[in-house]
Amino acid sequence: MRPSGRAPDQLREVKFTCGYTKHAEGSVLVEFGETRVLCTASVENRVPRFLKGKGEGWVTAEYGMLPRSTHTRMGREASQGKQGGRTQEIQRLIGRSLRAAIDLSALGERTITIDCDVLQADGGTRTASITGGFVALSIAVHKLLKQKKITKNPVHGQIASISVGIYKGIPVLDLDYMEDSNAETDMNIVMNDASAFIEVQGTAEGHAFRQDELNAMLDLAKSGIVNLLSKQTEALETHR
Amino acid sequence: MRPSGRAPDQLREVKFTCGYTKHAEGSVLVEFGETRVLCTASVENRVPRFLKGKGEGWVTAEYGMLPRSTHTRMGREASQGKQGGRTQEIQRLIGRSLRAAIDLSALGERTITIDCDVLQADGGTRTASITGGFVALSIAVHKLLKQKKITKNPVHGQIASISVGIYKGIPVLDLDYMEDSNAETDMNIVMNDASAFIEVQGTAEGHAFRQDELNAMLDLAKSGIVNLLSKQTEALETHR
Amino acid sequence: MRPSGRAPDQLREVKFTCGYTKHAEGSVLVEFGETRVLCTASVENRVPRFLKGKGEGWVTAEYGMLPRSTHTRMGREASQGKQGGRTQEIQRLIGRSLRAAIDLSALGERTITIDCDVLQADGGTRTASITGGFVALSIAVHKLLKQKKITKNPVHGQIASISVGIYKGIPVLDLDYMEDSNAETDMNIVMNDASAFIEVQGTAEGHAFRQDELNAMLDLAKSGIVNLLSKQTEALETHR
Amino acid sequence: MRPSGRAPDQLREVKFTCGYTKHAEGSVLVEFGETRVLCTASVENRVPRFLKGKGEGWVTAEYGMLPRSTHTRMGREASQGKQGGRTQEIQRLIGRSLRAAIDLSALGERTITIDCDVLQADGGTRTASITGGFVALSIAVHKLLKQKKITKNPVHGQIASISVGIYKGIPVLDLDYMEDSNAETDMNIVMNDASAFIEVQGTAEGHAFRQDELNAMLDLAKSGIVNLLSKQTEALETHR
Amino acid sequence: MRPSGRAPDQLREVKFTCGYTKHAEGSVLVEFGETRVLCTASVENRVPRFLKGKGEGWVTAEYGMLPRSTHTRMGREASQGKQGGRTQEIQRLIGRSLRAAIDLSALGERTITIDCDVLQADGGTRTASITGGFVALSIAVHKLLKQKKITKNPVHGQIASISVGIYKGIPVLDLDYMEDSNAETDMNIVMNDASAFIEVQGTAEGHAFRQDELNAMLDLAKSGIVNLLSKQTEALETHR
Amino acid sequence: MRPSGRAPDQLREVKFTCGYTKHAEGSVLVEFGETRVLCTASVENRVPRFLKGKGEGWVTAEYGMLPRSTHTRMGREASQGKQGGRTQEIQRLIGRSLRAAIDLSALGERTITIDCDVLQADGGTRTASITGGFVALSIAVHKLLKQKKITKNPVHGQIASISVGIYKGIPVLDLDYMEDSNAETDMNIVMNDASAFIEVQGTAEGHAFRQDELNAMLDLAKSGIVNLLSKQTEALETHR
Repeated sequence: MRPSGRAPDQLREVKFTCGYTKHAEGSVLVEFGETRVLCTASVENRVPRFLKGKGEGWVTAEYGMLPRSTHTRMGREASQGKQGGRTQEIQRLIGRSLRAAIDLSALGERTITIDCDVLQADGGTRTASITGGFVALSIAVHKLLKQKKITKNPVHGQIASISVGIYKGIPVLDLDYMEDSNAETDMNIVMNDASAFIEVQGTAEGHAFRQDELNAMLDLAKSGIVNLLSKQTEALETHR
Repeated sequence: MRPSGRAPDQLREVKFTCGYTKHAEGSVLVEFGETRVLCTASVENRVPRFLKGKGEGWVTAEYGMLPRSTHTRMGREASQGKQGGRTQEIQRLIGRSLRAAIDLSALGERTITIDCDVLQADGGTRTASITGGFVALSIAVHKLLKQKKITKNPVHGQIASISVGIYKGIPVLDLDYMEDSNAETDMNIVMNDASAFIEVQGTAEGHAFRQDELNAMLDLAKSGIVNLLSKQTEALETHR
Repeated sequence: MRPSGRAPDQLREVKFTCGYTKHAEGSVLVEFGETRVLCTASVENRVPRFLKGKGEGWVTAEYGMLPRSTHTRMGREASQGKQGGRTQEIQRLIGRSLRAAIDLSALGERTITIDCDVLQADGGTRTASITGGFVALSIAVHKLLKQKKITKNPVHGQIASISVGIYKGIPVLDLDYMEDSNAETDMNIVMNDASAFIEVQGTAEGHAFRQDELNAMLDLAKSGIVNLLSKQTEALETHR
Repeated sequence: MRPSGRAPDQLREVKFTCGYTKHAEGSVLVEFGETRVLCTASVENRVPRFLKGKGEGWVTAEYGMLPRSTHTRMGREASQGKQGGRTQEIQRLIGRSLRAAIDLSALGERTITIDCDVLQADGGTRTASITGGFVALSIAVHKLLKQKKITKNPVHGQIASISVGIYKGIPVLDLDYMEDSNAETDMNIVMNDASAFIEVQGTAEGHAFRQDELNAMLDLAKSGIVNLLSKQTEALETHR
Repeated sequence: MRPSGRAPDQLREVKFTCGYTKHAEGSVLVEFGETRVLCTASVENRVPRFLKGKGEGWVTAEYGMLPRSTHTRMGREASQGKQGGRTQEIQRLIGRSLRAAIDLSALGERTITIDCDVLQADGGTRTASITGGFVALSIAVHKLLKQKKITKNPVHGQIASISVGIYKGIPVLDLDYMEDSNAETDMNIVMNDASAFIEVQGTAEGHAFRQDELNAMLDLAKSGIVNLLSKQTEALETHR
Repeated sequence: MRPSGRAPDQLREVKFTCGYTKHAEGSVLVEFGETRVLCTASVENRVPRFLKGKGEGWVTAEYGMLPRSTHTRMGREASQGKQGGRTQEIQRLIGRSLRAAIDLSALGERTITIDCDVLQADGGTRTASITGGFVALSIAVHKLLKQKKITKNPVHGQIASISVGIYKGIPVLDLDYMEDSNAETDMNIVMNDASAFIEVQGTAEGHAFRQDELNAMLDLAKSGIVNLLSKQTEALETHR
């Protein structure tokens, strides 16, 4: 039995509150159960140095946890003077995943920065960030289209992400903190709406996993992603 | 006329959502109109080096703005590798103000850290942080009392803060962003429930202010503070 | 009785040694009793990024304490890799105060940096820095006028600063270290030669202050500022 | 056809030079074709803070590239004042992978640090680092056993790593730089000698990959790992 | 002819103002012509980690230039977040030189930090720092002896330093800024009162120097050092 | 007797492996006995800011030690966030020494960066770096000439470096680690092929040295340098 009483293939309650803050071109509060992440998309008329003059845009992400989003208070990275390895790993993953759904030429010389700030953490903050980040990005791009700043929609696919793992010997979907901290294996999967993989990141914690376990986890992930994709669509349609 | 249509001595709508996040010993989302700050109080069994072995506790504060809490995106301090001067100035002010209401001996060898994170900024983030910070602090202290970790209530006063300024020649209370960015003079006042001053910080922007203008602003501040103190009390009573 | 034997409204001996160092466009060693601050004004033909191409100049300040300007040695900020919060707070205050006396358009696209380095500290280093900083700034501007690099004097007012506080229940002017470290309330006041306030920064240390105490302190400050303004004028006239 | 003329399932020439440097408890120069990484294992009688007093040891890794190990010179991380996100990601991966083969209790209160420094890069530096890192670790542990500092061998498995990817539509093993920079998908696989997965990290570059492509890549990886494991064994036996 | 009109073997006017600041255990303003360096010696009851429990003391130095001690303003190292290579090189040299005159065992578990802060630079700041640093150190040690905190004088020699160089083909002593910036060769020599060398640091700038030129410079240095040693003695005797 | 059994005027075995890595324009592994340094020369079409638009080039150096190049593991400077004082001192010395052999105008607006990375340390890493750095620089310049990117050879001299010292009272050449850590005096000498000095850096460790001792060390250095210069020439000729 899972601590939450969920079935092995059951997602937590997933909720998108679009327009949660007012300044950003796109914003959404995404909730995977008690995990709450504020995702904002900011459009700026500049590109990184390596893209200057190429007529292409860029999508990047930054990730942060509020100091007391966690069980015990974590030091604030701003006051420690640097972002830790975990933070950098996650924000690189978010950016890479979202770029897989974007035609950077159609975006023009613009940068869209997705900020994912964890207000409350209960496992799965990176998968919530990617899934919510896609929603924030879509809202911002929709605004650019509506304002006729761009003419072709640069979003050419849909992206969502979910975690899977092996908890007490059983493959489970969407681990919460209690499961995550005791899982034998932990995977984060990013997929698109064509059922193809964008990222597969699996780590054995304590027990190396076999091919059949990997396959079971990937199957769970696929079913969860389908679910998330439809919730994203619904949230975006309601918002418009 | 004020851009918001408020009377010169009128506060914005003030709202406290206690228990906004679940991990912190005390947490509140404070709203001064569209300014939204998440204040959490974290209790830790350690004290700074200069207090070790003295049997006293400490109260300190940290302040941060989410990158897109503002009109245009600000660089994330964590990725810039340091906290700016404004951030440090504000967090020193919050900590100093809250310590004025606390008997550090009664707290025992504990540190309470008040984290004030701005989710959305529309002027007055530092006064909202102090006013909300006091609420988060009170909730955390109440929990320590209830758990019998301390026996005497270390909170010996009540603290709130509001801004006043001179906008288009007229003294006004609780400036929003539009007023703040055009004010000739800008003051932040921290007071206690005995109508005495904890902090008075006034800055002439463009036009130096006279004694009579100062007095008019202080009078406005006093009336606003009375109002905030009663809202804090109400929020804390409802929460318990 | 004050530890120094001074009357409550009595300044320490104030001294300006203009031209204390030779390379800077303006330099002065300012002494408030045993507090000694070297203020230099450096003129450079560049402006910060946010002013580029606007035809305006900028005045900014930096503040530092020599490691052994104090009773016990402080770590050198350069070797610690960052400026502390207090340093940043003070240099922001100095810059803001001096800009209140300057017409930045008349300065042209130039930056004047006021460096205030404390050689010996005995209380009141920030008020001495502002008061001396104005003298260094005036000397540098006078040189620009004499060299006909600018035609209109950008200095349109005169600025001085003094501390006031409540020591053993009595409002006193210009606190030295012994008073400062025991004061119940501590205020730093910046005023101009029109008797108007530029900055008012008051902090209760231990005991919150009432309106009548605030008024008594402001009266003391006004008398002290008048005195400082006339000493600045005298020093500048002697130097020319 | 692969640029190197290799068959899709063919490794580059793999070479281990054990004892390449003399000070480290374990050292090896590992070569995957033209990729050359110096791996050293350093034993120290200390553990990180979170392990103090628990009687357990720790294995960690650091990774660096010499500035001109690459086609164009990269800035030295030491002079830039921080390790980039890629570096941190890689060194976390190496440490995690090697810990999967170690019984930390049997190690006692010791830290073994695996330093992986890339002398020349031609693709696959992280897989070479893990594969070589295991050899350096084994040599160092063997020395501890021989010196009777530990009595039970803490190495309870064998670890190797290889990259796979899809290049011009075809799954290939052990990508060199020319392939890597043009691959549509890139995976790094870490496995043990029980044919189980320790880490699976796959990233779509340009084209999302399907389940059948994933399976083909995993099959290639398995065959490559078997090969590497036997080369490690041979190198370690020759060295002893 | 030298720009200053001095003879090739002539020092600038050298002046020591002992007790220039009041808080430090030892302080002196040293002047080599227009070069002015404030040297303070601070005694602290702690030693660096590598000396803990060995019953020995330590002498170390820090060096800084005020931002406008130079012809054009230099960025403040504290605000740049690090000390430059030149600063570190100089402070290592000062510390090493002064330790050559000290019996660290006789000092007991104390650290004396020599801070050398350049108020005005006109060439030769490092030699003035060493020469003045020795005076500050001697004053501080004398105080420890007088207070009977130590019983044996740890100062077992006398140290001074001077620059020599080849300017327009002629070996000269004690170069000022104008000479220094045009010298073909520049040497800094540290010697003790037994006419032996502590440090010899010569750098060819533009023209490599021959053995006979080296010898001529060393002879000049010796004569200068004799002079400085007697001025140090005189200053120390006057101060006591 | 020297620990290695060498005669006082005997160099360790010196070896240059040109072309040790393939990406750099010039590369060499230099060995002075067991000291092994990888020197690479990287040519880039940019110059530092202070040279922009002057038509001149620049030669600079960076130095690093692999963490376990030494007896006990040193912390990695990249993870500590800064280069230590010793590192900066050495890389400034290498750069200055090599520039003494280069006509920067003939180089054109290019920067050549010499990276010296110590793979294994056994004393004399800085002298090996300079001596090997010259070889790497020469190879890179030769390539520029061959590619006709420059027409005039900017290398107008030859540079080598060796250490000398006083070990157990006797002047010796080319100290290894065991000697170096026990030497009474330690000098590093840089000379050119005209038998003139580029750098002379001598430090008394424990015992101040006399003029006659200095002369004996300089004589040893000269003989060693002659030897090194001929080995460099041989290595460069063989490589071409």
